[in-house]
Amino acid sequence: MPSIVIAQGGGPTAVINQTLCGAILAARRHDPSLQILGARYGVRGLTADNVVDLTAVPEADLHRLGNTPNSALGSTRDKPDPDTCSDILAALDRLDARAFVYIGGNDTAGTLELLRQQSSGPCHFVHAPKTIDNDLMENDHVPGFISAAAFVANALVSIDLDFRAMPGIHVAIVMGRHAGFLTAAAAGWQQSPDDAPHLIYTPEQPFSIPRFLDEVDAVYARLGRCIVSMSEGVQDEMGRPLTEALAGGAVERDAHGNLQLTGGDLGMEIQKALKSRFRKARARVDTLGYLPRGYIGVIDETDRKEAFAAGEFAAQSALTGSGSVVLHYDGDRIEPRLVPLERVAGKTRHMPDDFFAGSSAVSAEGRGYFRRLLPTRPDIFLPFV
Amino acid sequence: MPSIVIAQGGGPTAVINQTLCGAILAARRHDPSLQILGARYGVRGLTADNVVDLTAVPEADLHRLGNTPNSALGSTRDKPDPDTCSDILAALDRLDARAFVYIGGNDTAGTLELLRQQSSGPCHFVHAPKTIDNDLMENDHVPGFISAAAFVANALVSIDLDFRAMPGIHVAIVMGRHAGFLTAAAAGWQQSPDDAPHLIYTPEQPFSIPRFLDEVDAVYARLGRCIVSMSEGVQDEMGRPLTEALAGGAVERDAHGNLQLTGGDLGMEIQKALKSRFRKARARVDTLGYLPRGYIGVIDETDRKEAFAAGEFAAQSALTGSGSVVLHYDGDRIEPRLVPLERVAGKTRHMPDDFFAGSSAVSAEGRGYFRRLLPTRPDIFLPFV
Repeated sequence: MPSIVIAQGGGPTAVINQTLCGAILAARRHDPSLQILGARYGVRGLTADNVVDLTAVPEADLHRLGNTPNSALGSTRDKPDPDTCSDILAALDRLDARAFVYIGGNDTAGTLELLRQQSSGPCHFVHAPKTIDNDLMENDHVPGFISAAAFVANALVSIDLDFRAMPGIHVAIVMGRHAGFLTAAAAGWQQSPDDAPHLIYTPEQPFSIPRFLDEVDAVYARLGRCIVSMSEGVQDEMGRPLTEALAGGAVERDAHGNLQLTGGDLGMEIQKALKSRFRKARARVDTLGYLPRGYIGVIDETDRKEAFAAGEFAAQSALTGSGSVVLHYDGDRIEPRLVPLERVAGKTRHMPDDFFAGSSAVSAEGRGYFRRLLPTRPDIFLPFV
Repeated sequence: MPSIVIAQGGGPTAVINQTLCGAILAARRHDPSLQILGARYGVRGLTADNVVDLTAVPEADLHRLGNTPNSALGSTRDKPDPDTCSDILAALDRLDARAFVYIGGNDTAGTLELLRQQSSGPCHFVHAPKTIDNDLMENDHVPGFISAAAFVANALVSIDLDFRAMPGIHVAIVMGRHAGFLTAAAAGWQQSPDDAPHLIYTPEQPFSIPRFLDEVDAVYARLGRCIVSMSEGVQDEMGRPLTEALAGGAVERDAHGNLQLTGGDLGMEIQKALKSRFRKARARVDTLGYLPRGYIGVIDETDRKEAFAAGEFAAQSALTGSGSVVLHYDGDRIEPRLVPLERVAGKTRHMPDDFFAGSSAVSAEGRGYFRRLLPTRPDIFLPFV
């Protein structure tokens, strides 16, 4: 019986299951003869024969599942070598797969492109986008990003209020290996230069601790507080991640060659530097870590809908060809389109140069982008501090 | 002109301004002849003559202010010595204060008790409770706690979902100097022993790293994941905070003698210990830090109302006498009552023994308490992992 196979790869997001839900419902609608199968733990589920039948899951259950954050089918960071690719293709063949929809980031798209190149069968390969990093080429933004960005923006507004009540310095370390979108997103809620984040450090701009301390000093002297948003992946002038420099090269990488960053090391270094420069100030570093990427308390409604629509479009497209679903913005509306996999696979989108105003601030252009995506900032009324 | 003075002390919460709002509106209602003054940055505002007139702030503005997290008047951790107490009392005298309502935790209550003892004037001293630590004696729970607990519970449910999708170990370091309520609160949402937090470490129970690693090992072997909630203030068998042991005694204390903990140091030590024991597992430590205490994205409605009611009751009580407002639970309803300041001042409420089941788990009794306070757990539906 012909089938469509769906899987999820990479780190989870708050809305990745909306995409799964949308894909299942669209597959049912567009070709009721297809069996709908879910591979558990990404492509691992195919080689390990760990597949669940989703054909008859009631629609109400699918919507409940869609509203639950984090990969419902399980995920993986495995990068298949050519042998494993053969095994995966053989499994797809055994399942009589006409389409394989893989929900994930640029590494997931890379896996699909490998499979597509090696495949000689009738199966189409479609990538449905998700990532909190917002680093997929060809996309205006990526499902999963808005909810994560809203979490971070809420965090930085709240920390700012905290430090308006009692002076001090706060650094939030935010996930982001190569792209600073998530770290910079809170700039979309800035209404005055006094609003946090006062300083923003992303992997796109060179970072140095002495300059960082000078910049904190200037803000702290002016406002009595300084709220900083810093990417885990900040890099020195040589383009070397600070965490790698700190670890003296003894770092872990995953199967895709991605550095396994821990915000903790960077955080401790930053804490030490702040303590040595600002002996009397309250200075605190927190690692937001995993919180932004699937926080059930802050799921954005637009993000939910776009993730669902991306899943629908992926399943529908997969009936006729291969490619990567991207969210296109025409200046007015967001709509999904299909582009060749190679334009997304394994590539990283960075924050554009014109989103920056110097090495530690976001430009009006950048703020406008994030403001367009973020939900409305909560009302804040503090006339006395 | 006779006045009532209001101030805020200690760390902020998500709903501390509801208490301010309630106090102002109740003062207006119960004695319209009173001038209503706000001391900025706690008692510091009195000695520094930094006082704002709140008498005529429009009610709509007060409600907006009430909905904004974190101390609207500013805060302080100063502990006044007898000389400073004299200065504060002289300032209250100059302001013709009939009542001083100070919103804060047990240190704030302690400051009020000092003032009350030293005062010979007509001013009443009333403490309105707030703290995310939930560590005030005589209270069923304290305004500010429920919102913070909801933040942490949402965090741990979300992290649990994250690790159901990909195996690993996660430790969240949660604020809590002496009392483990906030660290343990997420237990209120556990529906089965497989639900996070799988291990809970609070200051009330002795902590040792080797035992911690053994316990993580057992959970990880059983479930393929282990989600841990750990207080910044965990202590060794000798009752010594682990952070203090790590720092070799070189720690900071505030004016009240409270240890200035940073979750980062503890986090790094835990990360190191996990890495040496579980070489191949994904192991991650994040410090939630300041996030739970005033997160604008997660403000609990019950908490909001109780904080407002505590403020109303404080201002009303202050017209006739001194004391500490506490939230009393009669088995059915929560209602505010006034108790002598000395029963709350400077004292710490710990989690009761019967809230624990061993040194790393919460009992059914404890879970019931947290479940009663927390909002309903979000729906989670993940049939495949």
